Amino acid sequence: MVGYAFMGAAHSQGWRTVGRVFDLPRRPVLAAVCGRDAEAVRAMADRHGWAAAETDWRALIARDDVDLVDICTPGDSHAEIALAALAAGKHVLCEKPLANTVEEAEAMAEAAEAAAARGQVAMVGFNYRRLPATSLARTMVAEGRLGTLRHVRVTYLQDWLVDPEFPLTWRLRRERAGSGALGDLGAHIVDLAQYLAGEPVVGVSALTETFVRQRPLPAAASSGLSAVPDATGLGTVTVDDAALFTGRFASGALASFEASRFATGRKNALRIELNGERGSLAFDLERLNELSYHDHTEPGTHAGFRRILVTEPDHPYLEAWWPPGHGLGYEHTFTHQAHDLVQAVAAARRPVPSFADGLQVQRVLAAVEESAEKNSVYTPVAATPVTATSPAVRGDL
Amino acid sequence: MVGYAFMGAAHSQGWRTVGRVFDLPRRPVLAAVCGRDAEAVRAMADRHGWAAAETDWRALIARDDVDLVDICTPGDSHAEIALAALAAGKHVLCEKPLANTVEEAEAMAEAAEAAAARGQVAMVGFNYRRLPATSLARTMVAEGRLGTLRHVRVTYLQDWLVDPEFPLTWRLRRERAGSGALGDLGAHIVDLAQYLAGEPVVGVSALTETFVRQRPLPAAASSGLSAVPDATGLGTVTVDDAALFTGRFASGALASFEASRFATGRKNALRIELNGERGSLAFDLERLNELSYHDHTEPGTHAGFRRILVTEPDHPYLEAWWPPGHGLGYEHTFTHQAHDLVQAVAAARRPVPSFADGLQVQRVLAAVEESAEKNSVYTPVAATPVTATSPAVRGDL
Amino acid sequence: MVGYAFMGAAHSQGWRTVGRVFDLPRRPVLAAVCGRDAEAVRAMADRHGWAAAETDWRALIARDDVDLVDICTPGDSHAEIALAALAAGKHVLCEKPLANTVEEAEAMAEAAEAAAARGQVAMVGFNYRRLPATSLARTMVAEGRLGTLRHVRVTYLQDWLVDPEFPLTWRLRRERAGSGALGDLGAHIVDLAQYLAGEPVVGVSALTETFVRQRPLPAAASSGLSAVPDATGLGTVTVDDAALFTGRFASGALASFEASRFATGRKNALRIELNGERGSLAFDLERLNELSYHDHTEPGTHAGFRRILVTEPDHPYLEAWWPPGHGLGYEHTFTHQAHDLVQAVAAARRPVPSFADGLQVQRVLAAVEESAEKNSVYTPVAATPVTATSPAVRGDL
Amino acid sequence: MVGYAFMGAAHSQGWRTVGRVFDLPRRPVLAAVCGRDAEAVRAMADRHGWAAAETDWRALIARDDVDLVDICTPGDSHAEIALAALAAGKHVLCEKPLANTVEEAEAMAEAAEAAAARGQVAMVGFNYRRLPATSLARTMVAEGRLGTLRHVRVTYLQDWLVDPEFPLTWRLRRERAGSGALGDLGAHIVDLAQYLAGEPVVGVSALTETFVRQRPLPAAASSGLSAVPDATGLGTVTVDDAALFTGRFASGALASFEASRFATGRKNALRIELNGERGSLAFDLERLNELSYHDHTEPGTHAGFRRILVTEPDHPYLEAWWPPGHGLGYEHTFTHQAHDLVQAVAAARRPVPSFADGLQVQRVLAAVEESAEKNSVYTPVAATPVTATSPAVRGDL
Repeated sequence: MVGYAFMGAAHSQGWRTVGRVFDLPRRPVLAAVCGRDAEAVRAMADRHGWAAAETDWRALIARDDVDLVDICTPGDSHAEIALAALAAGKHVLCEKPLANTVEEAEAMAEAAEAAAARGQVAMVGFNYRRLPATSLARTMVAEGRLGTLRHVRVTYLQDWLVDPEFPLTWRLRRERAGSGALGDLGAHIVDLAQYLAGEPVVGVSALTETFVRQRPLPAAASSGLSAVPDATGLGTVTVDDAALFTGRFASGALASFEASRFATGRKNALRIELNGERGSLAFDLERLNELSYHDHTEPGTHAGFRRILVTEPDHPYLEAWWPPGHGLGYEHTFTHQAHDLVQAVAAARRPVPSFADGLQVQRVLAAVEESAEKNSVYTPVAATPVTATSPAVRGDL
Repeated sequence: MVGYAFMGAAHSQGWRTVGRVFDLPRRPVLAAVCGRDAEAVRAMADRHGWAAAETDWRALIARDDVDLVDICTPGDSHAEIALAALAAGKHVLCEKPLANTVEEAEAMAEAAEAAAARGQVAMVGFNYRRLPATSLARTMVAEGRLGTLRHVRVTYLQDWLVDPEFPLTWRLRRERAGSGALGDLGAHIVDLAQYLAGEPVVGVSALTETFVRQRPLPAAASSGLSAVPDATGLGTVTVDDAALFTGRFASGALASFEASRFATGRKNALRIELNGERGSLAFDLERLNELSYHDHTEPGTHAGFRRILVTEPDHPYLEAWWPPGHGLGYEHTFTHQAHDLVQAVAAARRPVPSFADGLQVQRVLAAVEESAEKNSVYTPVAATPVTATSPAVRGDL
Repeated sequence: MVGYAFMGAAHSQGWRTVGRVFDLPRRPVLAAVCGRDAEAVRAMADRHGWAAAETDWRALIARDDVDLVDICTPGDSHAEIALAALAAGKHVLCEKPLANTVEEAEAMAEAAEAAAARGQVAMVGFNYRRLPATSLARTMVAEGRLGTLRHVRVTYLQDWLVDPEFPLTWRLRRERAGSGALGDLGAHIVDLAQYLAGEPVVGVSALTETFVRQRPLPAAASSGLSAVPDATGLGTVTVDDAALFTGRFASGALASFEASRFATGRKNALRIELNGERGSLAFDLERLNELSYHDHTEPGTHAGFRRILVTEPDHPYLEAWWPPGHGLGYEHTFTHQAHDLVQAVAAARRPVPSFADGLQVQRVLAAVEESAEKNSVYTPVAATPVTATSPAVRGDL
Repeated sequence: MVGYAFMGAAHSQGWRTVGRVFDLPRRPVLAAVCGRDAEAVRAMADRHGWAAAETDWRALIARDDVDLVDICTPGDSHAEIALAALAAGKHVLCEKPLANTVEEAEAMAEAAEAAAARGQVAMVGFNYRRLPATSLARTMVAEGRLGTLRHVRVTYLQDWLVDPEFPLTWRLRRERAGSGALGDLGAHIVDLAQYLAGEPVVGVSALTETFVRQRPLPAAASSGLSAVPDATGLGTVTVDDAALFTGRFASGALASFEASRFATGRKNALRIELNGERGSLAFDLERLNELSYHDHTEPGTHAGFRRILVTEPDHPYLEAWWPPGHGLGYEHTFTHQAHDLVQAVAAARRPVPSFADGLQVQRVLAAVEESAEKNSVYTPVAATPVTATSPAVRGDL
């Protein structure tokens, strides 16, 4: 694993747990973790149970005891590391967004395609597909329970930037993060919407905004940023604080997306609703064990959105966990991701979501940025086949 | 009152009730109701307690016992009736949308301005301002409880057109209704958003769609439509089924709007959320006695969206109603509208929302249609001062 | 109508509205209202549209233009007025609880039975049966959708007595109110639970409590209380602040009841849930347009409590009101009660709930008080046939 | 650890994770797990990372590499194992309920007291105290935010016994489980209610019921039950299906408890609400990352139950987990329990809840059974000091 901050801890928890809970054809071994700060990465390895610590990701890739490289760094290094790992014959899991630019993502998808021919697996880490509730939703859409799709509306709202004194971290600089709320939150909801709908977004019209343009700089040593403080000690935010876009899916369904870090009081409010001719589904990440479902084929007298508690033994991933009503948490997405990836590796099957899927999301994000720059004009998304749309998603590991 | 269908019944209930519940300087008398079908309008007058029935709205306006004309007809006749009523020295209440075109709305706003100089009152019927919860929300925004506004997101979702066999009523024809979900639902949410925000929308980027383009024609006699059935007996829908638009408020806050009649399972889901630097508010018309409020100035440890049951004696309009927890319904908006209008008439004060406010909404809707025609390009809204933004809204009657 | 406070206003609204909204065989006329304070009752008559005002209820009953007497006074006068009205050949609507004692209620039920033979109708005002949601729930239970009933749990929580400075009103004195939360709130939930379950409570075990035993006296003139202030100017609360009881229904289903005026933050939280072998229902008066339903015969994978918005045209009482999603309020229960009573009068049919039903509730309340006095020992409820349990409740008017 | 079924898996997850997430003075080592079936326990040890497997709990206790014995067996063996472990100088964690009888629990509490003098720690596994939301609730009560407590109402509802074909497992036989819903679910809610209230229940009045008295027997080999099938192949359920009881807390606050496995559609609905003079709290285990709080000292105009998302860094246990809004799951209670226990062991401090606390819960359950047998008469709970009531609960480890 490369990277050892928030995502590193979450992935570690997934890797450590998956073989203890699920029956797996192969049990993951936490061979080595890599970070630039030798002391910190050593402490992290001890804490999380990694057998070794490295400070150079090239050394990590070169290790014989490493079969799979899990990339948890900021987006600007994804392409370089992933390409090197694939070239070295490793399987790869890469955190989202796949890359900071479409060009990088294209190179990665091509490399993954070539590596697939050699039996290598490359997955992108859109972990919100791995919740029982979203996975159940995907199955229900694929079963035709919604019929012709009319609307998809998604928001991903957080509020940690509302305070103008919040410092200028790497997530607020374009050279590291690629974009702001768009790449961080927007990438999640574009992927989740396409996954659930089973079809790609084909065009968008977008507005983006940076509400607070100057922020205090954090201690230089730790930030690794190139931002230069101005006369008042502030640095410039070079990414979006919020991104709103409408769009069309391939089938003609309409979509509404909103990603923001300025939605006061909303902590992690990824909410998605799909309306089809035969039914609707709604999900809220802040209540992640629940799925709302309206069956429009029922008589109106008794119809309504029902709250499915997605904790039954026959719900996705639940055979391995607790009795009905005993909910899972955020981190379980990483355990499930590890499960699906290990299954794909063992079976030498194309993983979902693949790097091609990650590229497709990247193309939507690029169209969003292009539209925002061009006065919100409707901007088509470059066409890429989405491999994520198979109904048998979990079978397709 | 002109018009006697759904809106006519709702307004009748408001007029009949207001003087029984509130202390009013003048008590309304239900003098006469007007409709084209003599028998039907007579029956309606008996049912709802109107003293007389007319079949020609000009005759209604000519009556000496009529001081105020309440226009509840489809949008294509609003301008003609309102202009005539104002010219005849009557006060006017006109259902929303104010008109089907900006030109008509401009003429009406000008006539209202001229009539105001003669002591006449002209109000547009955006009844959702008259809920205790929305009125409380307006007060809280005006008090500065949200601070600098960052986001406003609004949806108004219904599902009565999902069935392709639903017939082609007047609401689906441009020549009568002006537009579809946009004018019917979108007008409500544009007004409500501007009212709550206390500032106008200054530009929009829009997508509209008609999902089902051909529908069965209803019995010709009753429909009064000019639509000609095609070879299969179907007629053409000439309005939008759904309208999505993003936009900016004068202060730079971002807005997201969605109006649809294809959101399966959503019956009357007008939902609005405002996020400001100091707090947030959320409201859902399907739970109309509640207002959600997050106070961001509180310590995060104990903060969260609270559900205010807007039924306390000191909440707007509640001094006249029931004890705490005994909720009101949809129709009370019309009683409150009647209350506010009677107060305005008695005090010879400019009503809120005025025809100028209705014109402003119309201009936003026109910008939406223009943007949708121009590939969603960001389209400025023609500038009109909004008179609805005073903090002391109810005092401003 | 006798009595003109909160209940008087609510009933007036119902009588005034019912004929304007529903098709009725006979249209109610608001002939006269009665109260002890001549000036106040005159003002109330003007306000609410009563043609005449009386200060002696015997004079009201003696009027030839009065066919039906609606009793909205405190419980200590119900029996005397109702018996006189029935003796005078009038139809009667009596507010709940039917009486302050079982003995009074028995006399009333007997008189009503005798009057029924003369074509007179006597109904008790358990208005919460008249909500579309509760009425739909009753229909669903009667259709067998819950199967064998296992549990009924009900709370009715308010908080207006939490403040120890709240004054000693008539509702806090046994000689006027009979009991406290028990008779005021408990009567409602016992009736509603028996109505929905379709069977009587046959035994109870109870705890009651008076948390604040001394309260400031209100101005003597207006209170009409016999309470004598103590040395500190306080008077004694002689009723319960809260009553909790468990019990059994005739079928063996278990029940849990709680009524309190000390549940801080709960304004009018009448919540009821029924669990049966085949399904469950839940209702909350603070969201009175909604009914929660779990269908246990569905596959668990997609099952869950659904929120039925009880606003469809085929829902109870809704044919007369607004389109789907446009909710009703508390006061509509009185309009519906008037509707059902007028139908019963016109058809000369036994009304539901009858005085016998009111007596049955009274007997449950008496058993609660007896159990509370006897150290909570399980206390059977005297057996009375409940006439309210027919599945075709609305047909049984 | 003794026992390796559902609870064994959950505890394993806790022990394995705690040192990876929290900073601990001592890191737990999973030394050995014990069960009667050698093959099964060996497989479980491999799966969950236990270094060794034993088939005799006496052998486990005798091991030098075992410092702490975690008892996850059915209640009938708790006392024997715990007493032996304490006698052997081990620390003990014992699953709830502490024992199947008060006598056993008394012996265990005495042994724990004696062992405490030797520096041993004995904790009972009421894991629902270890949720961030319940722990926050406890802190808020201790801070005086509720003021004088008036009401505590708690339900713990499941539905897995609704189907009469569900087999007769050990949980349905008195000789193994002690009691039914009462000991399984009731123990949890009695403990949680006393913990949150900070005071003991002093008396109860109870009803219990067994709805389905005969059930099919499972395969004899696996069940280890002594039940003998009747002529029809069915065996007898000898525990309660549901238990309802009201009661009083030491302060005079009233309590309502309901535990059932027949609440159709409720999967794990542990719901608790506390109403005090100054505020209220509500919690629902099916939404375990949320706490509802009403602050009654605020002006009523803006007051209401707020939903605190208990995922902030300063919320209990959250410093070790994810960013705001990224919720935890059921199993985290066991990680937190392990954390608190390790801290207690390292500091040689009395753990909370202690065996004395477990005994107190047992006494309440015994009073419930006694009351249910005696016609629900109010039955005092034998007095034991509750050590769990300190405000500084986490500091008291």
